[in-house]
Amino acid sequence: MRFIRAAMSVLLLLVFSATSLRAQTWQMPPENQRCPSKWGAGDQRGAGNSMKPESVLRAAKLIKTGEIFELGAVLSTDPKESFINGSRVFNIYTKPALPIPNARAENEELVVTELGQIGTQFDAFAHQMWGDSFYNCFKLGDIGTRSGFKKLGVENVGSLMSRGVLIDIAGLKGVELLPTSYIITPEDLQQALAKANQKLQPGDAVIIRTGWSKLMGKENQRYGSVNPGIGIAAAQWLVSQDPLLIAADTCCVEVRPSEKPYSLPVHAMMLIQHGIYLIENLELEALAAARAAEFVFVVQPLKLKGATGSAVAPIAIR
Amino acid sequence: MRFIRAAMSVLLLLVFSATSLRAQTWQMPPENQRCPSKWGAGDQRGAGNSMKPESVLRAAKLIKTGEIFELGAVLSTDPKESFINGSRVFNIYTKPALPIPNARAENEELVVTELGQIGTQFDAFAHQMWGDSFYNCFKLGDIGTRSGFKKLGVENVGSLMSRGVLIDIAGLKGVELLPTSYIITPEDLQQALAKANQKLQPGDAVIIRTGWSKLMGKENQRYGSVNPGIGIAAAQWLVSQDPLLIAADTCCVEVRPSEKPYSLPVHAMMLIQHGIYLIENLELEALAAARAAEFVFVVQPLKLKGATGSAVAPIAIR
Amino acid sequence: MRFIRAAMSVLLLLVFSATSLRAQTWQMPPENQRCPSKWGAGDQRGAGNSMKPESVLRAAKLIKTGEIFELGAVLSTDPKESFINGSRVFNIYTKPALPIPNARAENEELVVTELGQIGTQFDAFAHQMWGDSFYNCFKLGDIGTRSGFKKLGVENVGSLMSRGVLIDIAGLKGVELLPTSYIITPEDLQQALAKANQKLQPGDAVIIRTGWSKLMGKENQRYGSVNPGIGIAAAQWLVSQDPLLIAADTCCVEVRPSEKPYSLPVHAMMLIQHGIYLIENLELEALAAARAAEFVFVVQPLKLKGATGSAVAPIAIR
Amino acid sequence: MRFIRAAMSVLLLLVFSATSLRAQTWQMPPENQRCPSKWGAGDQRGAGNSMKPESVLRAAKLIKTGEIFELGAVLSTDPKESFINGSRVFNIYTKPALPIPNARAENEELVVTELGQIGTQFDAFAHQMWGDSFYNCFKLGDIGTRSGFKKLGVENVGSLMSRGVLIDIAGLKGVELLPTSYIITPEDLQQALAKANQKLQPGDAVIIRTGWSKLMGKENQRYGSVNPGIGIAAAQWLVSQDPLLIAADTCCVEVRPSEKPYSLPVHAMMLIQHGIYLIENLELEALAAARAAEFVFVVQPLKLKGATGSAVAPIAIR
Repeated sequence: MRFIRAAMSVLLLLVFSATSLRAQTWQMPPENQRCPSKWGAGDQRGAGNSMKPESVLRAAKLIKTGEIFELGAVLSTDPKESFINGSRVFNIYTKPALPIPNARAENEELVVTELGQIGTQFDAFAHQMWGDSFYNCFKLGDIGTRSGFKKLGVENVGSLMSRGVLIDIAGLKGVELLPTSYIITPEDLQQALAKANQKLQPGDAVIIRTGWSKLMGKENQRYGSVNPGIGIAAAQWLVSQDPLLIAADTCCVEVRPSEKPYSLPVHAMMLIQHGIYLIENLELEALAAARAAEFVFVVQPLKLKGATGSAVAPIAIR
Repeated sequence: MRFIRAAMSVLLLLVFSATSLRAQTWQMPPENQRCPSKWGAGDQRGAGNSMKPESVLRAAKLIKTGEIFELGAVLSTDPKESFINGSRVFNIYTKPALPIPNARAENEELVVTELGQIGTQFDAFAHQMWGDSFYNCFKLGDIGTRSGFKKLGVENVGSLMSRGVLIDIAGLKGVELLPTSYIITPEDLQQALAKANQKLQPGDAVIIRTGWSKLMGKENQRYGSVNPGIGIAAAQWLVSQDPLLIAADTCCVEVRPSEKPYSLPVHAMMLIQHGIYLIENLELEALAAARAAEFVFVVQPLKLKGATGSAVAPIAIR
Repeated sequence: MRFIRAAMSVLLLLVFSATSLRAQTWQMPPENQRCPSKWGAGDQRGAGNSMKPESVLRAAKLIKTGEIFELGAVLSTDPKESFINGSRVFNIYTKPALPIPNARAENEELVVTELGQIGTQFDAFAHQMWGDSFYNCFKLGDIGTRSGFKKLGVENVGSLMSRGVLIDIAGLKGVELLPTSYIITPEDLQQALAKANQKLQPGDAVIIRTGWSKLMGKENQRYGSVNPGIGIAAAQWLVSQDPLLIAADTCCVEVRPSEKPYSLPVHAMMLIQHGIYLIENLELEALAAARAAEFVFVVQPLKLKGATGSAVAPIAIR
Repeated sequence: MRFIRAAMSVLLLLVFSATSLRAQTWQMPPENQRCPSKWGAGDQRGAGNSMKPESVLRAAKLIKTGEIFELGAVLSTDPKESFINGSRVFNIYTKPALPIPNARAENEELVVTELGQIGTQFDAFAHQMWGDSFYNCFKLGDIGTRSGFKKLGVENVGSLMSRGVLIDIAGLKGVELLPTSYIITPEDLQQALAKANQKLQPGDAVIIRTGWSKLMGKENQRYGSVNPGIGIAAAQWLVSQDPLLIAADTCCVEVRPSEKPYSLPVHAMMLIQHGIYLIENLELEALAAARAAEFVFVVQPLKLKGATGSAVAPIAIR
């Protein structure tokens, strides 16, 4: 295993010396080059494996004030209060009790929604496939069912707690919002980190700010169709830093429209090729306003068996 | 405010000197005696207000090894793998992509479920009312809508992080499972705490173990209809300790059938009268096996606007 | 019973001599004046009782050519093809089979929708209440449940087959579409009938054409918010003709905005006061183009126990 | 076209002289032998094409008394009142209005169900495929979407009105219920018809009675897993009679378990190979008790665009 990782590092170096010149040349490697993943044949947790008691303990020591920042957006049935992506739905149907004089009664609600892919949300590996092949080369014919996936479902993830680092690109550029479809480069990432006096470490939750969460519920059409985000080159540099997950305050983490000729190549790179999680639609304004650059990041995906992801409500603690 | 709390303490003393003799005499106080709540008129967060940066910081210092225990049950559409309560449903409908040769495609799923009240779940204050009156005397006619509640929804809660204490009653009694409908007493709670060398502190997450989570997915009919749990007297003693929340490895935290003549009186006492949260259907076997008595408890309810609760996947960290 | 109906006729005469002068004075009668309904205490079928073997046989004799006109609109998830009212949803989630080489496999779909009140739809009596009181003075507290109504559900209706008469007001006025919010008068109805050489008979399905079905899927916003339709006076005249049901090619059969100071008074008059069914959102263009004025009308509401109505696909046969 | 039908008749004769000897030899013909269907390339209505104004007029003349028999089962959320097949769901969530004193308010409901395949239900051609190939050789890759099928959806069917014939096999055998898994033979069908003094005609709705609808809501487990029904030979004889549709008072019309080595071969034969509709879960007891052997059959599938079928509430009129 150690040998494989060493070999992988060499390979990555080769890949990156090539890709630094022409990022657009990324291609999904053939299956025999990407499987088994660096976490081993049959692995379903990818970068989640980098979280260990030691890393949790190290992260916990970053808590200096106990201040908590809520990074999840409220999920409302009112489109003026929430962003719902495309044809997805989020509906709450109250099942009210009829009140009983001087006695207890209870209310509940039916919720109908694409729960794995709604609101602030966590992408698990069952979400994406290349042809019919998922992370670690699980195949659709083997793992797909009408009621979820037999492998790679979000129930394999568990709570993630790690060092979190905010890479504030909107702050770096001094703008409220990054321009529509701005492609964040490796240099942008590195400069924002340097400005915040931070370096990435393996196993980090990397949180990228564009300022765009301000548009959720206000300009849903725009927010949902085009957005600034990391391009292929920035994604490749991030992969080289061995992160636990990549998150952003946009619909898709990565830039849209995608760099030609791809459709969401960073999704494929992270979720299929490298086993790195994505989190979309974070609220980052309070975190940025507090100049919180390094913190503990905690996210608790629901244990929805076989689901492609989960709505989440992550926090940063410092 | 300080005055009110002092007065309240006196009142509680009076109440408890009375109730220690005859616990079954609990009654929901009239509105003018329970409203405004001790957290102030219009308050929607109840005991959630006890969480402050200092308490989070204090809790974080309890992390000694970085070991994480997952306390949430997997939510499966297969009743052999999950407990679904009564007539509620939990259905995942895969929305699979048709694979595209040598290109990315994405899967998602529609989920139809009573999301506020399913699986391991967190009860918010909109869940329970007495007559038409909720926590802090919000009224159904004022806050109820067909798509959620205007006040007291689970989106007001946010992530909770606090000291957690396991009160292992099954361990105290030396049994795998507490007997069906066993009523946990104040003395049981106190003895189990003493055995673990712990004392409750204000703002604690109190986690009560009966051993019954072993029945989920195996004996759903039994698990869902009757269970051991705290009775009225134990609940009143817990209230006197000012907890953040009460949780258990049963459907209802409190004993079922309920002590006559009530229907789930502890739900009414905690969620309506005192503003203390409940968490149901925890998995506590690994935590108990590791003899983890004191730890950090973290739960992240989804921010479902106006919902009565949320499926959750809490953790203990030590 | 005969006595009651005779007395009722006298009463109606009195009412109408009054209301012909000032139609806007309609008021819901107090309960002791409208209950029991003319169909008897406890009756749940209202005007559906007027259908008898003799009336079916009489209707069948109207079939002269065997030509069938489909009056139901296609229910599509694409808003460019269907009209979905307000915040209601109509979603189809395919549950596709994975194909098996040289063997049978089967597809199905989950449908999530307000099925009682979607598309071309039939209103049953559980749909409307005055205060907490329904047709025949059934009470919400007695018949309401979280999963339907114990009385007055659409399963009590059964298939309806009767003489149908098209009252083509758009044709009478020589317009493609009646003007927005045009109030159809008793005189309009009578003139259109005279032009078509028809008279209403007790038990008829009365079909009113405004031309507006042409807007479904094309101008949903307009179609769903304002429309021409019968006013209070026309509704009262129709009631005096003892119809089985009133139907139209608009969202609401009756004019919108409603005549002041009411909200959908014709709904209240028909469904609560008189027990006469309504059908909304018919497609009537082919029927009108064929100058079919008298025909057999057949509608088959689904037998959804306790539901307030049903999506339907009625036909006219001549 | 006439030539093709003549050729088809010859072919059928050949097929049947063979199959009468060994029914179990049925195989799905290769695509070039079954496509285009006898109704022409691109046809989506199959046997629905046999319905014409003349056939409707002919059927209408069968109405002698105006008596209507409701053949649809009530669809209830209570499993003691309805049969819900396997893992399908039928849930009604009332969306009640809060009553307003002395004013109108309206109730509605959300319904969540496999609407194309629930209760008394009509199978359209998108329901079944052989490999990835449907009726008339439409292909899954061409017509499948996440929200229905682009071709062969139930919206293509329209109301069906035709002569109906009851083939009462339980009556023929003099039993309340046919034995579990009894295979109805061609001879059974012919004897029951002879006993009722009826002959099948092209375009008939063929209604087969086993007595099993009595088990719906009472023995759902048994009703849903095994049942008497037509076998391959009986199905082939029925195909030779050119019916509009085949219906029965069982879950599946055809016998279960299926004759080896097939899985529901009659579904494949009718819906894929021959374009003949199926209707399942009829209530036939009242019809049989009235000895109604010949009647008008009317069914109105909902116009659910792209759906595999529809819940229905058909009637017989005599």
